[in-house]
Amino acid sequence: MVRVYLSESDHGLKPLLKCLHDELKVRGATVTRGVAGFGASGVVHGTSLVDLSADLPLVLEFFDRPERARAAIERIKDFVQPGHIVSWSVNVESSGN
Amino acid sequence: MVRVYLSESDHGLKPLLKCLHDELKVRGATVTRGVAGFGASGVVHGTSLVDLSADLPLVLEFFDRPERARAAIERIKDFVQPGHIVSWSVNVESSGN
Amino acid sequence: MVRVYLSESDHGLKPLLKCLHDELKVRGATVTRGVAGFGASGVVHGTSLVDLSADLPLVLEFFDRPERARAAIERIKDFVQPGHIVSWSVNVESSGN
Repeated sequence: MVRVYLSESDHGLKPLLKCLHDELKVRGATVTRGVAGFGASGVVHGTSLVDLSADLPLVLEFFDRPERARAAIERIKDFVQPGHIVSWSVNVESSGN
Repeated sequence: MVRVYLSESDHGLKPLLKCLHDELKVRGATVTRGVAGFGASGVVHGTSLVDLSADLPLVLEFFDRPERARAAIERIKDFVQPGHIVSWSVNVESSGN
Repeated sequence: MVRVYLSESDHGLKPLLKCLHDELKVRGATVTRGVAGFGASGVVHGTSLVDLSADLPLVLEFFDRPERARAAIERIKDFVQPGHIVSWSVNVESSGN
């Protein structure tokens, strides 16, 4: 599982999704919009929960086989700031594991 | 931790939640709606971020003890398409680990 | 990666975010609002997906180095009910791992 942290002000989501879909052909990807958060910049976004901030966090996640996930991370790491990609191992139900 | 990928057009969420709650009695479950994504079908949903698509991704997650989570996966795997359930190990704070 | 389960009715989010940001200075945090879910209380929230419940689940996540994440869990565990904090190991891209 690979998670990429973006923010709505990045405008980085569309090219990243396009790369994952068209070029890397990962099995699937989901993007979730946070309702609050802060990052290394120290800015707290949307803690009021009614703040219609234009800079809420976006979290993109996808999973694929380990070697493909690793290659995808290498390919996309220039799309985002350092330290904004995390990954962990998961079992996929259909693999029998 | 068990994650199940659904989409809004599946109409599979309610029976799945009901099964998890009434029959399997897992400790808790949360459902998050994605704002964009694509799946094995190759369809990109909502990348415009203003697209009020009726088919956005839904991500259901729950956690329980490993043997109970495993049993739950076996029970619910017929609710969803193959490869749409992933799981990974987590530590729970109250367990002292 | 540390995940904390809250609900909108807790009013615990703001003090928790403040603690994570001001005192623990974790690298970042994101908060996501679920669209449905249930907890140990057995209450099912928002399964209709149009229910404008005031008590939807909130999921706060942050990551940091293992020893800092551990310390953060110890600090924040009194903010939430037992069993509402889970954690798992992740690789961060910029670490070369």
